[in-house]
Amino acid sequence: MMTTATRPSILSLEDFVTHWQGHRALTRRVIEAFPEDQLFTFTAAPPMRPFGMLANEIHLVSEMTLGGLKGGQWNEPDWAAALRSRDELLSAWDALSERIAAEAPGANPAFFTDTHQLPWGEMTGWVAAIYNIDNEIHHRAQGYVYLRALGIEPPAFYER
Amino acid sequence: MMTTATRPSILSLEDFVTHWQGHRALTRRVIEAFPEDQLFTFTAAPPMRPFGMLANEIHLVSEMTLGGLKGGQWNEPDWAAALRSRDELLSAWDALSERIAAEAPGANPAFFTDTHQLPWGEMTGWVAAIYNIDNEIHHRAQGYVYLRALGIEPPAFYER
Repeated sequence: MMTTATRPSILSLEDFVTHWQGHRALTRRVIEAFPEDQLFTFTAAPPMRPFGMLANEIHLVSEMTLGGLKGGQWNEPDWAAALRSRDELLSAWDALSERIAAEAPGANPAFFTDTHQLPWGEMTGWVAAIYNIDNEIHHRAQGYVYLRALGIEPPAFYER
Repeated sequence: MMTTATRPSILSLEDFVTHWQGHRALTRRVIEAFPEDQLFTFTAAPPMRPFGMLANEIHLVSEMTLGGLKGGQWNEPDWAAALRSRDELLSAWDALSERIAAEAPGANPAFFTDTHQLPWGEMTGWVAAIYNIDNEIHHRAQGYVYLRALGIEPPAFYER
């Protein structure tokens, strides 16, 4: 078995942050694409939550992930701390993107191979960090269906 | 700027393959969750394609990605080569998962940092490989909405 030091690097911290921010930029465009009066009310398939609630969850998990990445605690978010308008959501989104740009590149790369205790279990930093992005892709894609059901063309998936 | 050799490794090829196969196992459960007569016909929001067509696309892009990963060509799939029943789709799925298990771990890790020419542009192997998985998560999540619209509880997202 190879040690971390001798394992070939297939991904750098910088490329990981670029990947994350690319997805965040796309999700921001999906939030913006919703009519303000549908973002927190419309659902294409009850009991699914409106996209504003899904985006709020993405925001809370992303904030938590940045905390973990910086070597802090993995405190379970206050799920009730809901952003309730498109403007509120977009402002919080932009503020967190700026924090990620400023703080994530300085993270210790050992974060990804170390094991962490999250509210939902023990896992490596890689698994925790990519789960955060996967969860964003998953819920955002549901927003794509909601937009289609509203007759709105969603932003192109391949643009980041 | 650090060279590939000196960049800290935040992800191993083995962990990447585990990540990919975990998503493939979940998508397989989503395919199975569809009633056979809805998989290739139902859509929650026209003009979106039925989930069987989305799963067929995931299959073709995954097969192409394995080809690229092994150092082969990035030939554009024959998009018309459609699998048209749930059984056909699941058999092709399982066969490809077995090929990934057998062939992907032997890939050259330099694949991820090298630049490749894909039918949709020039990118690093990392970007191409993670795009493949992101596209799977994206379309599978749309299948989650379809299942909900059909009154069916989808498989748990966090189980891989």
